[in-house]
Amino acid sequence: MDQKPIFIEMSLKSWNAQVKSTNKLLDELSDEALLYEVSPGRNRVIYILGHLIAVHDNLLPLLGFGERLFPSFGEIFITSPDKSSHIFPPVSELRENWKELNSVLSAHFERMSTDEWFSKHAAVSQADFEKDPTRNKLNVLLNRTAHLAYHLGQMILVKGSVKD
Amino acid sequence: MDQKPIFIEMSLKSWNAQVKSTNKLLDELSDEALLYEVSPGRNRVIYILGHLIAVHDNLLPLLGFGERLFPSFGEIFITSPDKSSHIFPPVSELRENWKELNSVLSAHFERMSTDEWFSKHAAVSQADFEKDPTRNKLNVLLNRTAHLAYHLGQMILVKGSVKD
Repeated sequence: MDQKPIFIEMSLKSWNAQVKSTNKLLDELSDEALLYEVSPGRNRVIYILGHLIAVHDNLLPLLGFGERLFPSFGEIFITSPDKSSHIFPPVSELRENWKELNSVLSAHFERMSTDEWFSKHAAVSQADFEKDPTRNKLNVLLNRTAHLAYHLGQMILVKGSVKD
Repeated sequence: MDQKPIFIEMSLKSWNAQVKSTNKLLDELSDEALLYEVSPGRNRVIYILGHLIAVHDNLLPLLGFGERLFPSFGEIFITSPDKSSHIFPPVSELRENWKELNSVLSAHFERMSTDEWFSKHAAVSQADFEKDPTRNKLNVLLNRTAHLAYHLGQMILVKGSVKD
């Protein structure tokens, strides 16, 4: 059995902790609560959830795991803002997509070798990577962990809302 | 000159990126905007700023750098919720405290050796640390980076508010 270096273990623990907190929040929020804005005039929780799915789905090609599972989501949840003319998938479907994607990503993460974690991700050129070897796959995980925490801090604001 | 291992460099870059984004936001927000709630009935930006100062101030003893700079903040900004009976320091003072603390922490972080980063922090016993060596100082940095991102995601919601 491959013994993971401690910093990879720590990075994965940090990612998993944010995913777990997000799952816990989503379990606590009703489908109706997912339609609330996190603050007046700001994004709705459903948009943020779709955005997280789209951004995490991009990890599949970025980290060399394969094709996106939800290729249409980038246009709806990254390129377009909330309350665009796009029709969103139903809340129940997004909840399932989120879970499915997490388990696919987890399986890939667990299988990765140390050398793979420190290899270049797909969005950086070989020349740029040689100039700055921190632009590796583990760094993408650290950045996406902070990105998830950022949006979790927003989604949690609707919890216990009077409308909920 | 000590060459930092790449994962320490990555962890510090991730921390610095969140601090930089927070500084940028604080520079953009008026003193009045800091008194807004991030969402109706939720914490005000000023409380979150005080909370971040208090939590980061705790890093000084936790990582073995010395005594807290603002020992009274824990009671006001961690133990107590926002809108308690506590009188907050003036906004201008909190802005200065935040900057001062960041530069003190940065100076300590830059000086730390790899062994120090992987040594136990002050809140874990030697026995527990031996059972789980991920409970080290670098792990605290990763956790606080996510904690900062979480609250940054909230504070940014008042940006461009109609009242601002």
